[in-house]
Amino acid sequence: MPAISNKGLSMPESPIRKLVPFADNAKQKGINVIHLNIGQPDIKTPQVALDAVKNNDISILSYAKTEGSYNYREKLAHYYLKNNITINADDILVTTGASEALSFVIGSIADQYDEIIIPEPFYANYNSFSTAFGVTVIPIVSKIETGFALPSIIEFEKAITKKTKAILICNPNNPTGYLYSKKEIKQLAHLVKKHDLFLIVDEVYREFIYDGKEHYSVLKESNLEENAIVIDSVSKRYSMCGARIGCVITKNQILRNTILKFMQARLSPPTYALIASEAALDTPQSYFDDVIEEYASRRNILITELNKINEVTVVNPQGAFYCIVSLPIKNSDTFAQWLLENYSLENETIMVAPAGGFYATENLGNNQIRIAYVLEKEILKRAVRILREALNTYILNEHSKEYILKEI
Amino acid sequence: MPAISNKGLSMPESPIRKLVPFADNAKQKGINVIHLNIGQPDIKTPQVALDAVKNNDISILSYAKTEGSYNYREKLAHYYLKNNITINADDILVTTGASEALSFVIGSIADQYDEIIIPEPFYANYNSFSTAFGVTVIPIVSKIETGFALPSIIEFEKAITKKTKAILICNPNNPTGYLYSKKEIKQLAHLVKKHDLFLIVDEVYREFIYDGKEHYSVLKESNLEENAIVIDSVSKRYSMCGARIGCVITKNQILRNTILKFMQARLSPPTYALIASEAALDTPQSYFDDVIEEYASRRNILITELNKINEVTVVNPQGAFYCIVSLPIKNSDTFAQWLLENYSLENETIMVAPAGGFYATENLGNNQIRIAYVLEKEILKRAVRILREALNTYILNEHSKEYILKEI
Repeated sequence: MPAISNKGLSMPESPIRKLVPFADNAKQKGINVIHLNIGQPDIKTPQVALDAVKNNDISILSYAKTEGSYNYREKLAHYYLKNNITINADDILVTTGASEALSFVIGSIADQYDEIIIPEPFYANYNSFSTAFGVTVIPIVSKIETGFALPSIIEFEKAITKKTKAILICNPNNPTGYLYSKKEIKQLAHLVKKHDLFLIVDEVYREFIYDGKEHYSVLKESNLEENAIVIDSVSKRYSMCGARIGCVITKNQILRNTILKFMQARLSPPTYALIASEAALDTPQSYFDDVIEEYASRRNILITELNKINEVTVVNPQGAFYCIVSLPIKNSDTFAQWLLENYSLENETIMVAPAGGFYATENLGNNQIRIAYVLEKEILKRAVRILREALNTYILNEHSKEYILKEI
Repeated sequence: MPAISNKGLSMPESPIRKLVPFADNAKQKGINVIHLNIGQPDIKTPQVALDAVKNNDISILSYAKTEGSYNYREKLAHYYLKNNITINADDILVTTGASEALSFVIGSIADQYDEIIIPEPFYANYNSFSTAFGVTVIPIVSKIETGFALPSIIEFEKAITKKTKAILICNPNNPTGYLYSKKEIKQLAHLVKKHDLFLIVDEVYREFIYDGKEHYSVLKESNLEENAIVIDSVSKRYSMCGARIGCVITKNQILRNTILKFMQARLSPPTYALIASEAALDTPQSYFDDVIEEYASRRNILITELNKINEVTVVNPQGAFYCIVSLPIKNSDTFAQWLLENYSLENETIMVAPAGGFYATENLGNNQIRIAYVLEKEILKRAVRILREALNTYILNEHSKEYILKEI
C-alpha cells in the first residue's frame, strides 16, 4: 500500500483512547463507570445560548465570516474589557475551537524542526499540534513537590536554542490546576522579550479560579504586543465543548495576517455555534458565581478525601478543574486498565487519565493520574472511595499480580 | 518582533480577498454588486435539517464523538449505497468540513517536500492545505480547448517522482465544471496502482450533474481499497456551507487510524452541525430534483448568454456550478478590480473570481475568470449583460487605460 507520512506515524495517539474498549466492556458487564478522565463538564450550558440556537431564523445555512463577524468580535472585546483586558475587535480571530487556534498559531510561527518550550505536565494535544507541523516540543519539568509552579527561569534560559520560537503555557493549568502568578507571567514576559520569542498562553480556564485568587492575563502586560498570543475558547467557560468556537488574540498584526491565511483555507467557523457563542456573552454573572462555587466545593471534597488516603499526594488546585494525583504504584497505565477490567466496588469503578501522556519526557508521571472534577460531589466522594479501596486491593491482592508484573 | 514561519509566509492569500475592499467601496457608493465570485448557493437548506436544530433538546452542549457517531456514519453509508457506492460506517471519518478532511489526509500521507499532483486549474485551497504541511503541489495543465478534460496519462507519468505521494482531483470539478468520465477515473486508478500512490477525489459536488450524465465515484473501483480516498461534505449538497461538516472515506484502515490521530487532537466536529447533517439525510429526492433542475437552467442561460459575447470562450459545464470563462483581456485581476472600482451599468456591477488563483503555474489563466452560477436566472442574465458592456468599455474606453497599462 502507499506509505503513511512520517508525521502521521509520529502523531501521538490519545492517551485515553486505548482505555476506551476496557470501559466499554465494563459497562457491558453492567458496571457503572465514573468518568474522572475527561474535562467534559456536567454543568448546564447558559439558557440564553441554547435559546438563541433554538430561535434562529436561518433558512440558508451559509458560510460565516472567516475570522468571525465584527459584531461578535466587538462583543468579545467588551467581555475582555470587563476582565480588565484592553483589546479591540481587530485583535481577535475567531476559530473552530481552541484546538484550531493553537494549530494555526504553531503553523504561523514555527517550521519543521523548530522548537516550542512547554512546562510539563501539559495538555497532551499540544504535542499533537506541534507534531502535525513537524515542530519539536521541549519540555521543562514542573514538579508536584513545588505544587507545579513555574520552573526556574534558569531552566528556560538553558532550554532556549536558535530553533526556539515560543514558550507555551496554560493558565490556569490543565492538567495541574496551577494558577501562574503575576510575578511568573512577568518573568516569562521578560524572557521572551529578551530572546525575541512568542509567549503563547492558553487561557481557556480563565473563569475557573478559586479561593479569591485573581487571574493575571498575559494580555495585561504592556510592551508585549508583538510577543503575546492568547488562546481562548467558549468550551469550558459556558459548558459548550460541542460548539467548537475559540479564538486567537494578539496585537501583532503581521502574525494575525499570517494566521488569517490559514483560516481562509478552512473558510469559516461553524455558523450555529457562532450564534450560541455570541448569545452566551449575555450570560448573567450569577451563572459564573454559581458555577465557580460548585467547582470550588467539588474541589474541596475531592482534595480532602484524596488526602485521607495513605501515600497519595495531591496539590490543592487554584484554578481549572483538574488535579494531578500521585499514587503508590509504578505504572498508572496498567492501574487504569486494571480498574476497568478487574475491579469494581458495589458494581462501580472509575476511569482515570494516566498522567504519562501529559509528559513529553519519557518515564515521567508514570505513578500519577489526572482527575477532572466535573462531576457532582456525591459521585466524586464515591469515586475517591473506589480509588482508595482499589489501591488496597491492587497493591495487596493476588488478582492484580499480572498487572503489577507488567509494571516492572 | 519574533519571526513568522517560512510556511506562514508562503501560505497563499485568498485570491478573492484583495478585491473585497473594492466591493465594499462600491456598495458604499450605492452600487449593487452581483457576486459571481463565490460558491455560496442561494438555495434553501432542507427544512428537515433546519427543524432538527430548532427542535434540539440539548441542555449541555457537549463534545461529539471524534469521528462522528456510529449512527450518523451508518446513515451516511446508506446514503452512499443509494448512490451505488458500497461502504460501511467504519470506512467513514466525519470531519469539520471538507477542508479539515483534506488537511488531515495530506498530513497523514505527505511530509515536507513531498509532492501531490493536481490537474490545474484547481480549487485554490488545495494549495493552502499542502503549503501548511510543506507539501509541494505539482500542477498538470488541463486546457479550455479540450473542455478541461483529464490531461493525458503520459503527462502524469512524466510528473511522478520519488517524492510523489498522491494524485488529487475534484469530480465534478471546481472551478471548471468538468465531469471526469468512468474511463478517466479508471486510467487514474490504474496509474496509482502502478506507482503505489494515493488517489484523492474530492466529490463534494457529486449531486450536481446535468444533461442526464452519471457521476462515477472512485469508490466504485474495485481493487483500489488501499489507494482511494474520497473527500465529501454536506456544504453544497444541502446548501449547508455554514455547518462545516464533511468526511473522509477510505477502506484503508491504516490510513484511517492515522487520520484519526489528527482528529483526536481537535476533539470533535461541531455538535449542532452534526444534528443538522444527520437530519439532512432524510431530505426527500424531490429537493434534489428541483435543485438540479434549477442549476441546469441557470447554467443554460449563463452559457447561452456568455456565448453571445464576442471573443469570450466558455465550456458548457457538466457538473458542479462553476465555469471558467476566457475573456479578451490580458489580466483578469486588474479587470476584476476595475469592474468594482470604475464600472457600473444601471447602478450595478459584478464581482468575479480572477482565475489566476486557480493555477499553480505562474501566468496561466490570467485572461480567465471563474463564475459561480449560484444566483437566480434573472440576476445571471443581468450579470452577463454587465460583463458584455463592461468588456466593451474596458477595451475601448479611456477610463480603463491605467488598468490596461498595468497589464502590460
